[in-house]
Amino acid sequence: MPNPTSPGSPDPSPMPSPMASQMLTEIREQPAALERALGALLPAREEVRALAHGRRRVLFVARGSSDNAAVYGRYLLEAHAGVSAALAAPSIATHYRAMLDLDDTVVVSVSQSGATREIVETQAWAAACGARTVAVTNVAGSDLAAGADLALLTHAGEEKAVPATKTYLTQLAAMAAIGTALAPDPTALDAVLAAVPGQVRSLIEDADAVAPAVDVLAQAEQTVVSGRGLLLGTALEVALKLEETCLQPVRGYSYADLRHGPISVVGTGVVALVAAAQDGPLAGAMTELVADLRRRGAQVVGIGGDAAFAAACDVAVPGPDLTEPIAPLGLVVPAQLAIERLARRLGLDPDRPRGLNKVTQTEVHAG
Amino acid sequence: MPNPTSPGSPDPSPMPSPMASQMLTEIREQPAALERALGALLPAREEVRALAHGRRRVLFVARGSSDNAAVYGRYLLEAHAGVSAALAAPSIATHYRAMLDLDDTVVVSVSQSGATREIVETQAWAAACGARTVAVTNVAGSDLAAGADLALLTHAGEEKAVPATKTYLTQLAAMAAIGTALAPDPTALDAVLAAVPGQVRSLIEDADAVAPAVDVLAQAEQTVVSGRGLLLGTALEVALKLEETCLQPVRGYSYADLRHGPISVVGTGVVALVAAAQDGPLAGAMTELVADLRRRGAQVVGIGGDAAFAAACDVAVPGPDLTEPIAPLGLVVPAQLAIERLARRLGLDPDRPRGLNKVTQTEVHAG
Repeated sequence: MPNPTSPGSPDPSPMPSPMASQMLTEIREQPAALERALGALLPAREEVRALAHGRRRVLFVARGSSDNAAVYGRYLLEAHAGVSAALAAPSIATHYRAMLDLDDTVVVSVSQSGATREIVETQAWAAACGARTVAVTNVAGSDLAAGADLALLTHAGEEKAVPATKTYLTQLAAMAAIGTALAPDPTALDAVLAAVPGQVRSLIEDADAVAPAVDVLAQAEQTVVSGRGLLLGTALEVALKLEETCLQPVRGYSYADLRHGPISVVGTGVVALVAAAQDGPLAGAMTELVADLRRRGAQVVGIGGDAAFAAACDVAVPGPDLTEPIAPLGLVVPAQLAIERLARRLGLDPDRPRGLNKVTQTEVHAG
Repeated sequence: MPNPTSPGSPDPSPMPSPMASQMLTEIREQPAALERALGALLPAREEVRALAHGRRRVLFVARGSSDNAAVYGRYLLEAHAGVSAALAAPSIATHYRAMLDLDDTVVVSVSQSGATREIVETQAWAAACGARTVAVTNVAGSDLAAGADLALLTHAGEEKAVPATKTYLTQLAAMAAIGTALAPDPTALDAVLAAVPGQVRSLIEDADAVAPAVDVLAQAEQTVVSGRGLLLGTALEVALKLEETCLQPVRGYSYADLRHGPISVVGTGVVALVAAAQDGPLAGAMTELVADLRRRGAQVVGIGGDAAFAAACDVAVPGPDLTEPIAPLGLVVPAQLAIERLARRLGLDPDRPRGLNKVTQTEVHAG
């Protein structure tokens, strides 16, 4: 179990050079942030279990990066815990004002700031529909935390760069806490969870391993990102981060969605970034996807995967040594490092992508 | 109520010129197909209600265009019928082989061919998990139909072009049948449903109204498609069809997802295609989205919407005169007509996009 009071090994480059972006600084803060988050969240699993007692399903409410974290939470609950889970459509609450029967449901709302009005309103709607509510947020005392039956704080610390890094990764820690809390044996993955901060630290120390991937991504005419199952959320998050930080159009697809249409536009000039775990029932399918993409002319950058997957890719970036259900807590880190470098390579400021605020309100003129 | 035996007005151009694509021929078959589909599906609502008796939620299983139809079904059930609905993750069944408690659930599987193995397997898994099952398919006697508790046939007739048009639109008719079947008053929208074939016929007769949209789309450096709520599925389907038929990278986003990141890459050279209904609680928000996209430098092609929406767009394509819950059954038609024309303008064969088969199997080497 991670111990937030243990010194652990120091984070690499705790005093970054003046040239380091805020985004890079925050990427490097992730091992310590994860130790704090897991140290606080894993003991809260008993409260999650108590709150969920007698309830049959989980519904997530989130947008943007938080939504990508929720996609992981959904798969972990279904694949690992055997609990039905889904993502809510907030407009059902905020615009259609439909009442649903949620008295068999735990609603988990995810928002870094806890201040996105749409999410706060949807949580209140869920409670009115009979749901028990859990808020996952980085801000104690936020409207989201104050309105929930149970608030799970992610303890990421303040994040100044617009692209979410440590706040996203600690949301994944909260998803892991919830997903394991509702499993038959909540502690079955604890040894793996304890290894996460160290694995993330190693990936950051080995940051130069992403250099060949950055070289390929810098030449891309088009970029697609794909993942599947427990890694789908990672692929969606990498696509979103790449697009908003490097200002290039990127499409993120599930493996299945890619094969049902968009694969027709994969050809020469396309770079496909594919995230995969080192094990699990999708390992073989992901290697076949890489081969298919390369046959169509794409250059494939793989992150993680098993040995066959890495061998099938044009460029293979090592992932963490974490089994598939927990792999998302490490696999996004090399992608973060690559995106930060790519932004600088392209002459962009990774900390301040144009056109985005740190707290996004869905409504343009929301009051 | 549509009467499949009534002659109605003849479809426009029942004998297409030798130059007409198969896709255009099938677009033109849609009024008759919708009359057949609605004539068969609306009376089946009693069976749907009986099958769903005592069940609390609906879970859709689908991929590709069928998945986009299911997105509409999900919103219609929640916004109109007040019934919780969600989309399944088929890999939970086919790869993770997790067992979920679905004995409070109706599972609706959607597949044109009824032969996509992943969908057939997931339906069998759902039944083993306790679900009652409804198959929505165009093929009587298909594995999907044979394995379901209730098979709803879409009566589209054979579709030869690879891009789904009439098979998609008749799937929407099935979604409307299911969504109204479970509403407090199943017949509340019947007058609107009865108007659908005639509205679609008018849109096809007025096909030249899409010409200005085709001119703009032909010049696009990048294209994004957006819609929201009951029209989200339409936006996703238009993005998929545009991409697979015209072989250009297109990104389809919900309004909210677009605002939470990807909007940062909207600028000059981007064409945004936005679908909206003529009424409903999102009408104002969609007009604000159009204004925001134009401020960022995009050219906006609007389909449907109210007068303020049309006035806010660079190019406005008229939609059907159908209230929002049923609007998707008409709004996709101008987009189909524009996509077919755009493909030919680009020198492509709309009937045979490269790299795609009519029946997509998700696994590359599925046995």
